[in-house]
Amino acid sequence: MTSMALAATLFGPEDLRMVERPLDPLASGMVRIRFGAGGICGSDMHYYRHARTGDFVVTSPLVLGHEIAGEVVEIAGSVPDVKVGDRVALNPSRWCGHCKPCRENRPNLCENIFFMGSASKTPHMQGGFASYFDAVPAQCVKIPDHVTYQAAALAEPLAVCLHAVARAGDVTGKRAVLFGAGPIGLLTMLAAQRAGIAEATVVDIAAAPLAFATRLGANHVVDISSGEEALKAEAATRPFDVAFEVSGTAAGLASAIGAVRRGGVVVQVGNLPGGQIPVPANAVMAKEIDLRGSFRFGMEFFTAVELIADGSVDVLSLVTAERPLSVAPDAVRLALDRSQSVKVVLTA
Amino acid sequence: MTSMALAATLFGPEDLRMVERPLDPLASGMVRIRFGAGGICGSDMHYYRHARTGDFVVTSPLVLGHEIAGEVVEIAGSVPDVKVGDRVALNPSRWCGHCKPCRENRPNLCENIFFMGSASKTPHMQGGFASYFDAVPAQCVKIPDHVTYQAAALAEPLAVCLHAVARAGDVTGKRAVLFGAGPIGLLTMLAAQRAGIAEATVVDIAAAPLAFATRLGANHVVDISSGEEALKAEAATRPFDVAFEVSGTAAGLASAIGAVRRGGVVVQVGNLPGGQIPVPANAVMAKEIDLRGSFRFGMEFFTAVELIADGSVDVLSLVTAERPLSVAPDAVRLALDRSQSVKVVLTA
Amino acid sequence: MTSMALAATLFGPEDLRMVERPLDPLASGMVRIRFGAGGICGSDMHYYRHARTGDFVVTSPLVLGHEIAGEVVEIAGSVPDVKVGDRVALNPSRWCGHCKPCRENRPNLCENIFFMGSASKTPHMQGGFASYFDAVPAQCVKIPDHVTYQAAALAEPLAVCLHAVARAGDVTGKRAVLFGAGPIGLLTMLAAQRAGIAEATVVDIAAAPLAFATRLGANHVVDISSGEEALKAEAATRPFDVAFEVSGTAAGLASAIGAVRRGGVVVQVGNLPGGQIPVPANAVMAKEIDLRGSFRFGMEFFTAVELIADGSVDVLSLVTAERPLSVAPDAVRLALDRSQSVKVVLTA
Amino acid sequence: MTSMALAATLFGPEDLRMVERPLDPLASGMVRIRFGAGGICGSDMHYYRHARTGDFVVTSPLVLGHEIAGEVVEIAGSVPDVKVGDRVALNPSRWCGHCKPCRENRPNLCENIFFMGSASKTPHMQGGFASYFDAVPAQCVKIPDHVTYQAAALAEPLAVCLHAVARAGDVTGKRAVLFGAGPIGLLTMLAAQRAGIAEATVVDIAAAPLAFATRLGANHVVDISSGEEALKAEAATRPFDVAFEVSGTAAGLASAIGAVRRGGVVVQVGNLPGGQIPVPANAVMAKEIDLRGSFRFGMEFFTAVELIADGSVDVLSLVTAERPLSVAPDAVRLALDRSQSVKVVLTA
Repeated sequence: MTSMALAATLFGPEDLRMVERPLDPLASGMVRIRFGAGGICGSDMHYYRHARTGDFVVTSPLVLGHEIAGEVVEIAGSVPDVKVGDRVALNPSRWCGHCKPCRENRPNLCENIFFMGSASKTPHMQGGFASYFDAVPAQCVKIPDHVTYQAAALAEPLAVCLHAVARAGDVTGKRAVLFGAGPIGLLTMLAAQRAGIAEATVVDIAAAPLAFATRLGANHVVDISSGEEALKAEAATRPFDVAFEVSGTAAGLASAIGAVRRGGVVVQVGNLPGGQIPVPANAVMAKEIDLRGSFRFGMEFFTAVELIADGSVDVLSLVTAERPLSVAPDAVRLALDRSQSVKVVLTA
Repeated sequence: MTSMALAATLFGPEDLRMVERPLDPLASGMVRIRFGAGGICGSDMHYYRHARTGDFVVTSPLVLGHEIAGEVVEIAGSVPDVKVGDRVALNPSRWCGHCKPCRENRPNLCENIFFMGSASKTPHMQGGFASYFDAVPAQCVKIPDHVTYQAAALAEPLAVCLHAVARAGDVTGKRAVLFGAGPIGLLTMLAAQRAGIAEATVVDIAAAPLAFATRLGANHVVDISSGEEALKAEAATRPFDVAFEVSGTAAGLASAIGAVRRGGVVVQVGNLPGGQIPVPANAVMAKEIDLRGSFRFGMEFFTAVELIADGSVDVLSLVTAERPLSVAPDAVRLALDRSQSVKVVLTA
Repeated sequence: MTSMALAATLFGPEDLRMVERPLDPLASGMVRIRFGAGGICGSDMHYYRHARTGDFVVTSPLVLGHEIAGEVVEIAGSVPDVKVGDRVALNPSRWCGHCKPCRENRPNLCENIFFMGSASKTPHMQGGFASYFDAVPAQCVKIPDHVTYQAAALAEPLAVCLHAVARAGDVTGKRAVLFGAGPIGLLTMLAAQRAGIAEATVVDIAAAPLAFATRLGANHVVDISSGEEALKAEAATRPFDVAFEVSGTAAGLASAIGAVRRGGVVVQVGNLPGGQIPVPANAVMAKEIDLRGSFRFGMEFFTAVELIADGSVDVLSLVTAERPLSVAPDAVRLALDRSQSVKVVLTA
Repeated sequence: MTSMALAATLFGPEDLRMVERPLDPLASGMVRIRFGAGGICGSDMHYYRHARTGDFVVTSPLVLGHEIAGEVVEIAGSVPDVKVGDRVALNPSRWCGHCKPCRENRPNLCENIFFMGSASKTPHMQGGFASYFDAVPAQCVKIPDHVTYQAAALAEPLAVCLHAVARAGDVTGKRAVLFGAGPIGLLTMLAAQRAGIAEATVVDIAAAPLAFATRLGANHVVDISSGEEALKAEAATRPFDVAFEVSGTAAGLASAIGAVRRGGVVVQVGNLPGGQIPVPANAVMAKEIDLRGSFRFGMEFFTAVELIADGSVDVLSLVTAERPLSVAPDAVRLALDRSQSVKVVLTA
């Protein structure tokens, strides 16, 4: 039996260390996972730099990581549907299933949610950038042999994007504009294309991500690093039906509200700073816009695994580097460099 | 044949005058209306004070008034469904019926809309605070004998509120909070109650409107003139499912976003100042809120006339004063005094 | 430890007997329930008379009963949220949570469903008309002290009706007609009234149930035992927006389709005979009707318990007789007599 | 001025004749159209054979034709948006715009509808298989120069199909099965493919239409002329999410209900015989199916013209023969021969 795990643990801003943690005996009804691969998310990077993300503040050591795949190595008691040796994608969420949001089919808003690698509760919920960690069976979604752990780890960000597209309503035949060409922006583009949008315009302030977006299939890209004229011209000739704000910036949100047509939809996916953000709010009324928040994901996690398994969405096309878990701190720093990185994935 | 009309005409900020206007011969297919009654709207008051409302600026003399009822006195050519002598409520909107928003059943967003008493286009579209004015037959909704012109004139603001409630989706059994106890806030409360909300909480910064709200049937009222503690306590014990922002203030919008529960809906009805407004936008994502603009109304106008005619909504309960059209400038000034006025109506 | 249970077991048509069954040791993760109360459902009566209901055929002894409440008396292993001594309403459904319908928030259509007291699978799933039986923790919904077992047992039929009303869409302000004044018809009426319908018309072929409907709050009742003239007159003067077919008869379905207005909705709740049923199907197209099946329930079970607990729906108002579990066969026969019975409930 | 029109007039079963009709002076606000092209619809064929279709019975001479395009040759008075010489597609519907269905955005159910070439009212509403006929301006949708009258005439059946697809809800990524490979079935397939279905299976009892369906892009075709085994095998391996019943047969409807998966949707487009039709109605409940009628179309007419104009849907790919209006009776007989004809179009 394994008794120790090596985990990427955050102690404060820019203080991420690989630390040995003792493993307790596996609790009844739980399963133990050996790390297979893990994607580094924007929120991991936020935690790394600021020891917080949005309103969640790290107040005690936090193991990062919620985009994870691995192998079931131990099971305590009899559990249905999971067996030792299964290769699984990990749903980082545990939903209670009976609170009001769960009953309304919005488990992402579960009042009793457990979410891996998050400081949203105290004590913090430990993440999956660890050689071993424990989960409940319902978090484990078996993957076929031909799916790598690297791909399976990216089911989580894909689920975020599927949820964002679902929040936009029926997008068939619609023109979409996406603000932010990072991994979530690009996966949202792929998810929206699969959902039937007519064309995708990607907006960013950096050249490298925009070039990457073009290679992935963006119909148009707009660089607004030196002003919004080009974007306004674009919006005038081809009014946008739906915008996805993924950049997590006030400017992105303001541009999104400005860019959509009357009656348009803006989905807010990006994690904005807390507090008051300047927004052209009168346009929400005058253009009768729907501004819809999109938080994590629900059942889309299962769909994401399927889309990866059947080849519908090539998540690996976003991966620009792989690094072993043992150098996770270096890998996080690499991921922070947008000129080099789109998505960085940790491997066993 | 009538050849002159006396019209409440705005020439600049606080420069509203009763002016004689010559009437052109009635154009083919049009109908001429003799003024019966007219409600003074918040946007009339905005125009009066600032010669603008939101982004619409008065650049030439503008006859105010878009909450109007009257009598058909002349018809040019044969028109269906309308005859001389009909008493009618006037839909201030003329929709083209074939633009993209019209086809999507969002005629309020009609790209070719004509809206009475509005500076949103140049030349401006003249309003109905005039002894005579012209309309198309589709604007004329016949009212039964027992409905007064005063009541019929208020079909327009009621339609605004029915639309706002429709934008909130199914509100059955939900808890609603309304920010702003003016005429639109109060009528929205009545409309939401008719649509099945479980309870209504009304929030304002002035005592008189809140007292009026209580008399009209608000379940709870909260005065936030000296802070939001009471509102926060209310939201903590009875989480609000839906908020209506009717005050047209940045503070109201921020409070509305803060007050609704996770997964809640905020309807933005109030006309905010143009430009950037500080908004707690991260909460839109983190609580997965739907923030929905609500602009004017569509087919709800016809429903509003029906609800007034069958007694479902007692619009006259909001009327605090009646004044003849000939003293419209004084009446507008009276309406501006919230300590005295809820709704002021002009009569023939 | 209890080792035997006394169970109402069906061996064939009209062959229902109280039989002693040995209890196996409680499996890990399961809970054992002592019978508190049980409602006799129409499908229990179908099973009793024909040893089948719809397409489900009894091929080996079947313990009836799926409207059940009781007390937790034993727990195997540690389970969250349930403890020995809890008084609970039993959700007869166990949903897998990961099949396609479960992910689409339609757990009632779960491909791997377990449903108490049903012959829809082989081996049959045993029911709850037994002094002791086993369940999974997720089936157990704790009830407050002031809720009797009799009331809690009726959460299940109420959930069926809440689901039927949900299938009708937004019913606020609509006129509803219900075919069949049995327990499900009457509870559907109560559920629809709570959801905001403007008025309810109840149709049946027997006088006693119609009189009961009137006492419960039906706005109109129509007896069609000698023809549909009265119903047609009713439909002509007050077109029905939505119909609930609860009688499980071809005539009821045909009448429902005939009674609703153009664009109306018909919800098929009743369990019709299998095979081909004569239906005025052209009217579905020509009136552009929505005919929607309604099968069991999903998360509505939890809502049902809440509505009973907070007094919103008085399920006990339907109960016409209580009998001890030990005479279940007699009680089923009593329930079959519509001139005497609306709802019969078994007690411990 | 033209004073006579030559019109294909139905006097009884199989008694269709070209007859001269005097033209009254054009009424004020109306426009006169010179015939450009006209599609022969299944309902024209029903009228031809039986002097009725569904519940509409021909009781006096009826000019057929409601799939029409032509040129504006005269206007009485001033009308907006239309001028002499305009080439137009004719919307056969005139909606009142203010009845309850119109206000609910279901103008196809308009209580005061005028529909060209239909015996649904007395006096009958005369159709457009006439060298000249009159219309209101709102019926006239201008077509670009590159669109032929033949193509424009098929905007009407395409609108029927767009409406059917809209009734199915969001079909993105879904598997569809269509019963009936006639013009409406095939156009519905094209419309559903454009709306994002994953694959289309077409079912018929005749080889020629199925071969045509394959050429048009059906993913699978199933011939059920000698039994439903192949269809059942297909449904077992790839469960259908949505079925379109376009054949207008009881067998088609029964097959559609049987073919869809639990929670599936069946859209009834075909015009079934009046009276009672045998339907496996219990499956509607047990599988919780949505059976939705689809009647004509609303605003989809305008979209249809656009899709034809921009090349999105190649309606002319269905045309198997063109014949001059003067031999309309022969052309109708040709259209009735399914071994030779898919769509027959009349030309000037």
